[in-house]
Amino acid sequence: MHADQDGPVRRWERRSEIPLFAASLLFLAVYAVRVLVHGLPAGWRNACLVVIVVLWSLFAADYLVRWRLTGRWLGFVRTHWLDTLVLLMPLLRPLRMVRVYTAMQSRRDQPRLSLHARVITYAGLTSVLLGFAGALAVYQQEHAAPGATIRTFGDAVWWVCSTLTTVGYGDVAPVTWGGRTIAVGLMAGGLALLGAVTGSFSSWLVQAFRREDENDEDAAGPAAG
Amino acid sequence: MHADQDGPVRRWERRSEIPLFAASLLFLAVYAVRVLVHGLPAGWRNACLVVIVVLWSLFAADYLVRWRLTGRWLGFVRTHWLDTLVLLMPLLRPLRMVRVYTAMQSRRDQPRLSLHARVITYAGLTSVLLGFAGALAVYQQEHAAPGATIRTFGDAVWWVCSTLTTVGYGDVAPVTWGGRTIAVGLMAGGLALLGAVTGSFSSWLVQAFRREDENDEDAAGPAAG
Amino acid sequence: MHADQDGPVRRWERRSEIPLFAASLLFLAVYAVRVLVHGLPAGWRNACLVVIVVLWSLFAADYLVRWRLTGRWLGFVRTHWLDTLVLLMPLLRPLRMVRVYTAMQSRRDQPRLSLHARVITYAGLTSVLLGFAGALAVYQQEHAAPGATIRTFGDAVWWVCSTLTTVGYGDVAPVTWGGRTIAVGLMAGGLALLGAVTGSFSSWLVQAFRREDENDEDAAGPAAG
Amino acid sequence: MHADQDGPVRRWERRSEIPLFAASLLFLAVYAVRVLVHGLPAGWRNACLVVIVVLWSLFAADYLVRWRLTGRWLGFVRTHWLDTLVLLMPLLRPLRMVRVYTAMQSRRDQPRLSLHARVITYAGLTSVLLGFAGALAVYQQEHAAPGATIRTFGDAVWWVCSTLTTVGYGDVAPVTWGGRTIAVGLMAGGLALLGAVTGSFSSWLVQAFRREDENDEDAAGPAAG
Repeated sequence: MHADQDGPVRRWERRSEIPLFAASLLFLAVYAVRVLVHGLPAGWRNACLVVIVVLWSLFAADYLVRWRLTGRWLGFVRTHWLDTLVLLMPLLRPLRMVRVYTAMQSRRDQPRLSLHARVITYAGLTSVLLGFAGALAVYQQEHAAPGATIRTFGDAVWWVCSTLTTVGYGDVAPVTWGGRTIAVGLMAGGLALLGAVTGSFSSWLVQAFRREDENDEDAAGPAAG
Repeated sequence: MHADQDGPVRRWERRSEIPLFAASLLFLAVYAVRVLVHGLPAGWRNACLVVIVVLWSLFAADYLVRWRLTGRWLGFVRTHWLDTLVLLMPLLRPLRMVRVYTAMQSRRDQPRLSLHARVITYAGLTSVLLGFAGALAVYQQEHAAPGATIRTFGDAVWWVCSTLTTVGYGDVAPVTWGGRTIAVGLMAGGLALLGAVTGSFSSWLVQAFRREDENDEDAAGPAAG
Repeated sequence: MHADQDGPVRRWERRSEIPLFAASLLFLAVYAVRVLVHGLPAGWRNACLVVIVVLWSLFAADYLVRWRLTGRWLGFVRTHWLDTLVLLMPLLRPLRMVRVYTAMQSRRDQPRLSLHARVITYAGLTSVLLGFAGALAVYQQEHAAPGATIRTFGDAVWWVCSTLTTVGYGDVAPVTWGGRTIAVGLMAGGLALLGAVTGSFSSWLVQAFRREDENDEDAAGPAAG
Repeated sequence: MHADQDGPVRRWERRSEIPLFAASLLFLAVYAVRVLVHGLPAGWRNACLVVIVVLWSLFAADYLVRWRLTGRWLGFVRTHWLDTLVLLMPLLRPLRMVRVYTAMQSRRDQPRLSLHARVITYAGLTSVLLGFAGALAVYQQEHAAPGATIRTFGDAVWWVCSTLTTVGYGDVAPVTWGGRTIAVGLMAGGLALLGAVTGSFSSWLVQAFRREDENDEDAAGPAAG
């Protein structure tokens, strides 16, 4: 994904990644407060809006800095299409978590998790964050619509769970066009991620059984000798 | 898929592919206008029909030319069953997109996308086009049926999304036999394609994590030395 | 699956496989006539029943012959559990199709399909036959039940399609315990088979794109030389 | 999963595994009796409760012994997070079945099943036990709730089947928050396991077809010589 391996872009990314991730979690939290807390006084509501705007400006600044450092123009938008998308829809920021994960891993000098465990952790966490953001956005669109079945935030969370697992009971489902558009985006993003979780778990299980075979053969070897 | 690698068939295909793809997009567009625009004057409706018939004759002509060039008879129908199917149901033409993609790739002397990225792009685009064609056809069958839940084109698109992701809420579902037949065809075609998207994304993610491991080892090597 | 490779069991299986497969298709057809044709005179109904019993005796005889030839007792039931299951529930006979397929392939001296194409063909055909048998059995259980949503055979087929693809709209669903038990069996058998179809299609697509790469490199090689 | 391969922990685990698995099956059975048998006299109800508490103490004692033997503190909780989870929610104990399976396999000096067959057996059995525990827990939460669609244990089992296969008809679905929470846990645990079953079946099928190719080539070899 990076054309430049050790240049200034890379250095900037390594330094800005964790602060920006903290900012995006804060973004999600403030957005959640604004959407979920109903009796919020007007002053607090405005404060939330200000924080949201400030944080978004931060994301935009980071995007511009990286654009500048790369020295390319339209090519940057194309190769960094995920960053562009995330800038336009900040609720999708969890999708960029892979970099934070990498950055945190390379700081701590810990033994790494196995390959499959890391894919499961990353894809699982990302889909949980994406699902939370999706539940917030759908709740905001739906809760006051006429004929809506998603009336509480709990309904929205239940709907996200039944959607991302592709179970789809249909007891709650979005009815507004805004809610349905968000739903389609959530499906597109979340299903691929959860497919990666399931696939990696399956591979890990097969690997665990295979390793067990080899252990048994090792154990059997000396005993027979 | 090709018994003949460099013969006249291959040359014909290389030249005709992109014009034919443009024709099939036009076909889809004209069909969409005819189905979706309700107050269309009779003159325009007939014009649409004429364009549809002309385009279909073009597809039939291409099929006949290729049949001739191959010099085989029934064997051609069997080995080119996808082309035969696509000729009979022109809305399925997007399924032939793989050739257009190949043709465009070999013209532009660009560096290629990685294997998984290409599978995702191809299977994703194909299922989007197939889903659009399916939504049009189901809308045409259902929108005036008594007891139908798919009443607007928006409903049809929402239904296609919830079907192709296998979520299947059931809030909207086809009720006529025509609509259900199209639905089964759409499932058969689309699910395999989307399975390919999910599977490739999963492989790509595992590969990205593995590559990262190797980069870290390379970086650690000289530092330790 | 076979402990014995060339003994008399193998010879028996090779000879009896295709007649037995024809018998099982006939079984399915006669069962379908009995279930689907409503105004059937009593004489014809009884004739159908006789044919069903005779065919089932044939299956039982084949099972006993093979048991005898193997010369084992309970071990046979365990290693041939699929045959035992199929004997008890003859509608599941399509699951044994793999042997017929093998038998037919080894008779015709034709070039084989590729590995993935064969898995898709086998698993696809098996799940179509299994789905048809399941639709018949569910229709028989449900069509007269109070509060049933599966009222016609068309409904049953539509239900099987939406179940095997895991879409599950829920507009039609079994309500009797008999129908639900058959549904669970159908899910258990059919989903694994369709998963194999989707997985193989995905692998085949990746392989097709990889082969194309290699062709391009071969073509580029001499041109550059 | 084990940091220590042959120490006292390992010996303890090898000896305690099968008694503990028997205890966990008993736990499930007694819990089932308490939930499902409605006219149970108060004396029996209390006896069930006592058995449940005693068995859970046994699980807690095993956890403490292993914690002690390991000689680590918080590290134990982290590396054995599955054991910790299973201690807190004893209905999830089937998830630990992999060890029992291993223990039983290494006692009997039988030829092993193939790798894929073992993954299918393990993941299939685990999800059946998990599904049964989930059906019990959901039934307990839902059966008396106002507006519930899961009214009998049969409904709960049908719901579990349609959920774990991701079909999700929606004719029965949990309506209480307790029931929905259990449902989400069941999805998270069960779908990954069933994905492993489907994936392994698919791999096994491809392998079976490949082996058949090789057998044919072997058979063709001497015949041609």
